[in-house]
Amino acid sequence: MAGEIEARLKALNLALPEVPGAIANYVPFLHLNGRLFISGQLPMQEGRITVAGKLGADLDMAKGEEAARICLLNILAQAKAALGDLDRIVQCLRVNGFVNAAPDFVDHPKVINGASNLIVEVLGPKGRHTRIAVGCSSLPLGAAVEIDAVFAVD
Amino acid sequence: MAGEIEARLKALNLALPEVPGAIANYVPFLHLNGRLFISGQLPMQEGRITVAGKLGADLDMAKGEEAARICLLNILAQAKAALGDLDRIVQCLRVNGFVNAAPDFVDHPKVINGASNLIVEVLGPKGRHTRIAVGCSSLPLGAAVEIDAVFAVD
Amino acid sequence: MAGEIEARLKALNLALPEVPGAIANYVPFLHLNGRLFISGQLPMQEGRITVAGKLGADLDMAKGEEAARICLLNILAQAKAALGDLDRIVQCLRVNGFVNAAPDFVDHPKVINGASNLIVEVLGPKGRHTRIAVGCSSLPLGAAVEIDAVFAVD
Repeated sequence: MAGEIEARLKALNLALPEVPGAIANYVPFLHLNGRLFISGQLPMQEGRITVAGKLGADLDMAKGEEAARICLLNILAQAKAALGDLDRIVQCLRVNGFVNAAPDFVDHPKVINGASNLIVEVLGPKGRHTRIAVGCSSLPLGAAVEIDAVFAVD
Repeated sequence: MAGEIEARLKALNLALPEVPGAIANYVPFLHLNGRLFISGQLPMQEGRITVAGKLGADLDMAKGEEAARICLLNILAQAKAALGDLDRIVQCLRVNGFVNAAPDFVDHPKVINGASNLIVEVLGPKGRHTRIAVGCSSLPLGAAVEIDAVFAVD
Repeated sequence: MAGEIEARLKALNLALPEVPGAIANYVPFLHLNGRLFISGQLPMQEGRITVAGKLGADLDMAKGEEAARICLLNILAQAKAALGDLDRIVQCLRVNGFVNAAPDFVDHPKVINGASNLIVEVLGPKGRHTRIAVGCSSLPLGAAVEIDAVFAVD
């Protein structure tokens, strides 16, 4: 049965956003030989960054987690655009989480959990991924978080 | 016909540099099972870093784009050393762009476009890649940019 | 003959640590279709970070290399947990090295050599990898280094 994952999104009361276009000369996704690569996604909603700033400076944890969650919704929206049906995802292999963070910030994992928790909630065991979470001196357009992902797909 | 990509390089009046050696205990490329992994390349020409400094501090955008462009030429030089013929490239899957950037810098995508624009110019549709662009607190040898890449090859 | 790599570890007087659990909602490794992905590992020993701080500020090079070495031992411990036998590793394809580094730090490659030298020592030619080494504004739990890896396995 197709559309299982999207039914789960609906049950979770989650709507996938319009896919954000690439903001430069590259593509938002590539699907080749059973792998789906998604470009770094920002906390962008309706064409603008909605969570900007730096963790450990002008943003609290809740804002950081919200940013990561929006990035992940954009990743799922790109995956849907690439695959047509999210049920074609076999496994989320990797999530790379980049946090716009002050020099003394230490809670990068909690920030990126905003994305990790959501993808497991949506994809179930297929959403259980390997991950990095690191701090960046700055990010595009002042975004609080940037996240990219690699999926195995059929 | 082999050498198509190199003919395009010539038409663009671009010469591939000597391949920079690894500056530590690793290899500049690995080719296995249809994938070509290239190590992070710096804006290095004839053995020295030619664009050092920090975007948003002591470097302007033009210098940043130039740095990214040199990194990309070094990536192509490594790919040529690995494959013999750049026509064996099926697709550039991923470009990871790391910008040496001040805490309030926001134009990482424009910097990494120096690489993205060039690879599309050289490889055509095969050069259209997924990408990240993030800010680093510092980079090896003070380089302005570091870029790595993954290719699908035949 | 199985256990060759582990015999080499023993000859080098190296013991693999207990595998560190994921410190958030993700998995420490994924093994699928001949690829083994390892999540970012920290310089964690017996459940706590043993090398915290920033290169170019409060840590010297020896401490940085030690941190990278501990990260790599944790990567090998995860690989052993994933594969049962480290001899199943065909090649280490990629090591991504993230250094907690001050804005003017330039020796990221030397820090990550703490990991690169060890993996070549343990795995021989199969340990020769592609790599990035970049500077982060901060890292999880204040760790000095975070390293992730991708292996080809049979």
